[in-house]
Amino acid sequence: MSETYQKLKNSTLDEQRAAIRSGAYRSHTAGLGKGHLQANLAIMPEAYALDFMRFCQRNPKPCPLTGVSDTGNPMMFTLGRDIDIRTDVPAYNIYRDGKLAGSANDISDIWRDDLVVFALGCSFTFEHALMRAGIPVWHIDNDKTVPMFRSNVDTVPAGPFSGKMVVSMRAIPESRVSEAIEISRRFPLAHGAPVYWGDPAGLGIADLSAPDWGDPSPIGPGEVPVFWACGVTPQVAIEAARLPLCITHKPGHMLITDVAEDAEAPVLSVTNDKT
Amino acid sequence: MSETYQKLKNSTLDEQRAAIRSGAYRSHTAGLGKGHLQANLAIMPEAYALDFMRFCQRNPKPCPLTGVSDTGNPMMFTLGRDIDIRTDVPAYNIYRDGKLAGSANDISDIWRDDLVVFALGCSFTFEHALMRAGIPVWHIDNDKTVPMFRSNVDTVPAGPFSGKMVVSMRAIPESRVSEAIEISRRFPLAHGAPVYWGDPAGLGIADLSAPDWGDPSPIGPGEVPVFWACGVTPQVAIEAARLPLCITHKPGHMLITDVAEDAEAPVLSVTNDKT
Repeated sequence: MSETYQKLKNSTLDEQRAAIRSGAYRSHTAGLGKGHLQANLAIMPEAYALDFMRFCQRNPKPCPLTGVSDTGNPMMFTLGRDIDIRTDVPAYNIYRDGKLAGSANDISDIWRDDLVVFALGCSFTFEHALMRAGIPVWHIDNDKTVPMFRSNVDTVPAGPFSGKMVVSMRAIPESRVSEAIEISRRFPLAHGAPVYWGDPAGLGIADLSAPDWGDPSPIGPGEVPVFWACGVTPQVAIEAARLPLCITHKPGHMLITDVAEDAEAPVLSVTNDKT
Repeated sequence: MSETYQKLKNSTLDEQRAAIRSGAYRSHTAGLGKGHLQANLAIMPEAYALDFMRFCQRNPKPCPLTGVSDTGNPMMFTLGRDIDIRTDVPAYNIYRDGKLAGSANDISDIWRDDLVVFALGCSFTFEHALMRAGIPVWHIDNDKTVPMFRSNVDTVPAGPFSGKMVVSMRAIPESRVSEAIEISRRFPLAHGAPVYWGDPAGLGIADLSAPDWGDPSPIGPGEVPVFWACGVTPQVAIEAARLPLCITHKPGHMLITDVAEDAEAPVLSVTNDKT
């Protein structure tokens, strides 16, 4: 896989998508789709779609909505010229009644006419911007998964969707915290500015070395733990809502879009041509 | 009315809302709710709500969604501690089958359990920011309505909602255009950066002195016409969709929210406390 990955990393976006669509590539998307927005995925029956969309609107920092399909239409036309959501994500998790029921590399056989696809922005965008500014991101430099914690902050509920906000933690040198805040604030579709920084007790987090998801990440001397709203938040809300069917991306295996990472709006259209 | 307005302008937000709720004040909201987000309004049956929300998501510059009610619940709890949408807007227009059927200062008697309220950001926020930076805004200085034009740019359709994008025009001194772009880009909930500037023919606009809505505004020597996506866009899409019932604010008579004008997210909650 590593050789395939290295080769694919230097391919065009179209070649990368073709490799994913054909099943030739089924692994994670970190480092792929350079310069383009990547997205988390939640696919659910239309009966739940309005409430889920309200949940995202009310909790824009953990759930930055970047695309919504027409009901029953697998083509994500606002995010790319030719994105078929049934085949163009490397790996999917399938939940039934709120429980993981299986995974797949292609969901064509379980696609239904009442499904609605939601694409949600992820943290890659602001992490790239931090690194470009020379702010170290430990979990990337060390090939780990960012540590994530269930906080004591309630989301704003909508219909069956509710729960605590999940946050991800990155240790930032104290002298660069305000810069990190300003940089990430520029990317509202990638969780925006941090929700909190400093003593983790303020978020109800007892032990930074024991994340609820991901790998522990050290806080070096002179570093401050900084917490961003995390895309696991809607996944937890969806699981708690026990939808009869919900399909998500497998963690790390995201949808690569045609939209530029720094686009003002996540829509392939004319509105953004000159900005 | 002018005396009432001057008095109300110096009142607290709670006093302003009480005056609107009681019917004592029924006029425009420009200059009221200082420092707080104001919003356009569209109220429609739930049967159309998912498609309208998709329309807003796909056209975020003309339709920046700032709040969505629960179905049948008139309290806009994400936008204020005590906002009853049936009474807290100074004046409403009522459309039936796509045609203006009347106006009202209170819609309690026609409220229904299947209605969903959408609040959309408006241009006040970025106009205030432009003026604070010393960039003149002619229509405000001259007590006129901003000129608005139907452009040749298609919106991205969703269900029955579609149509051309409506744009508003402000003449900006050439030396300050890039600054105006950067300032307004900071307010994605207030239409964000302009969609176009320069020769109006590029938007299919033949005559700047004949706006489709609002008052003509002169282009002075050394000034460039700059065009922003406009909140009339969703109104035109809604009229074309001929909904059996739709209630909007009367132009200029907006919903004043409790949310700070420069909030990162338009939600009264804990997520934004530290930013």
